[in-house]
Amino acid sequence: MDPASILDGSARSFFVLAHRARTDGDFSLNDLCGAAGRLDGILRCINASLFLSHGMRRDTSVHALLMGDPDPPKVLSICGSEVRYLNPDERSTAALVKRALSIHLPMDPGACVVSTPGIYVTRGDLAYVLGKLQGRIYLLDEGGLDIWKLASDGILSETGANSHFFLSDDRDYTSAERISLEGASLCKFSVSPLTLHADHAISVTHNFLDRSSID
Amino acid sequence: MDPASILDGSARSFFVLAHRARTDGDFSLNDLCGAAGRLDGILRCINASLFLSHGMRRDTSVHALLMGDPDPPKVLSICGSEVRYLNPDERSTAALVKRALSIHLPMDPGACVVSTPGIYVTRGDLAYVLGKLQGRIYLLDEGGLDIWKLASDGILSETGANSHFFLSDDRDYTSAERISLEGASLCKFSVSPLTLHADHAISVTHNFLDRSSID
Repeated sequence: MDPASILDGSARSFFVLAHRARTDGDFSLNDLCGAAGRLDGILRCINASLFLSHGMRRDTSVHALLMGDPDPPKVLSICGSEVRYLNPDERSTAALVKRALSIHLPMDPGACVVSTPGIYVTRGDLAYVLGKLQGRIYLLDEGGLDIWKLASDGILSETGANSHFFLSDDRDYTSAERISLEGASLCKFSVSPLTLHADHAISVTHNFLDRSSID
Repeated sequence: MDPASILDGSARSFFVLAHRARTDGDFSLNDLCGAAGRLDGILRCINASLFLSHGMRRDTSVHALLMGDPDPPKVLSICGSEVRYLNPDERSTAALVKRALSIHLPMDPGACVVSTPGIYVTRGDLAYVLGKLQGRIYLLDEGGLDIWKLASDGILSETGANSHFFLSDDRDYTSAERISLEGASLCKFSVSPLTLHADHAISVTHNFLDRSSID
């Protein structure tokens, strides 16, 4: 498997920085908020990225940059074009993630394993991921330009290149992450006058893209 | 407790028709999709209705019209202005719902019990609920007017009266529900060119209202 084709292979993709999400499968499905390092929020981002009513967004992928103990960094990727057995509830999605994170992953950067269809785990950190992306990179940030304006000005166009949207979990970007992301991104965008959970921000981002794509 | 003040007491409220969600507390937190009658989707609607990043939407309430076995109809209400102990993950929210539905509720229409702070269960069906609402009623429907147009035309204004948004779970409205709701509602609205899960539609609806309220 070529990690570049997984990370950069969808027309639309969401990258969520999961600052303390656990990086092995040794967690209980009954304690996703605590021992699994707030994996619950990442599961909701997976749901918001991929699900339509009675269907899946086949043009979309979602990637969680897992930085928690005991084996960081890893990137968990779920590709809408291939994924199977994914249901919208947190617990069953957590079971798929647990299975994927239980597979042995070599220490080499770029080492990659497939779990169930469409679910991959790659050895890599933010710098590794950014180095693999050829498409346009957008950074969700409260101080960014309103997505409404970006969409109406055509800056959010999905023609010609893939679009990659970076978000943080319930913690803010670190200074180092911010420097890397601001250097790599086309622009910073915001979705609301209020501060939203990452999964709600993904739903709103999808909505503006869905509207733009039919205009 | 006066059910009218619970059902009609928030500036913004979401009413979700939960066609087969269980109406007692006799379900396992490990099987929210099956034995609990797709309660998982209702839990996600509660999350999307009430949570902000590091905060709660205190002007919002969410109500699930529960129609599943063994004791329908019941309305589960969670009021953002009062609720405590609510966390964003599905499992802990399910535990609060299970506790609320385990309390004995008399058979009289309008009988009401409080569980943990801000969580109420009322005996009543759709007709009962509609009879208690004084504010503006909006019906989410794929064939409805685009919420973008409603917001820009001022039809979605939140001044002067409370706003109530009705949505269905993963099943479509029944013919009887549709007749009642169309008769009571100011208009039908849609949020996307695609068909979304109810919780994603709530996130998008909030976003348009949040934008309108700061213009």
